[in-house]
Amino acid sequence: MKKVNVYVTLRESVLDPQGVAVKGGLEHLGFAGIESVRIGKVIELQVADETTEDMVKEMCEKLLVNTVIENYEIEMGVLA
Amino acid sequence: MKKVNVYVTLRESVLDPQGVAVKGGLEHLGFAGIESVRIGKVIELQVADETTEDMVKEMCEKLLVNTVIENYEIEMGVLA
Repeated sequence: MKKVNVYVTLRESVLDPQGVAVKGGLEHLGFAGIESVRIGKVIELQVADETTEDMVKEMCEKLLVNTVIENYEIEMGVLA
Repeated sequence: MKKVNVYVTLRESVLDPQGVAVKGGLEHLGFAGIESVRIGKVIELQVADETTEDMVKEMCEKLLVNTVIENYEIEMGVLA
């Protein structure tokens, strides 16, 4: 088995309401100097050793990522 | 301004229903060899240069992370 991480983030052009809300919350708690907050996903996969990056890419394109509004980055063979 | 990433993941002992559902979905699409899927958050902060790691840690403890069921990792000064 090996570990693969997929980092999914909203495209720059897409508004992130969750991030805006968190920014407001932090400022409400008194934290200053915060220009922006954007929230994405990190998907940790434990997969068989023979799984290739192309197979993970296909998983992303078919299910894990909404490629219309999201970008993704695959990190193969992460140390557990 | 500098960029800080906070990686938030569920503790190992906590069941991840979202991950279980995604695993089922991938298998349903015909992907084999997937032992587990766990889903976390990556919070991207653009903050003032003088923001310290302790300040980010306080943001995590107060708002960004549910420390009862989640772990977090802070990555300061990420290249944009």
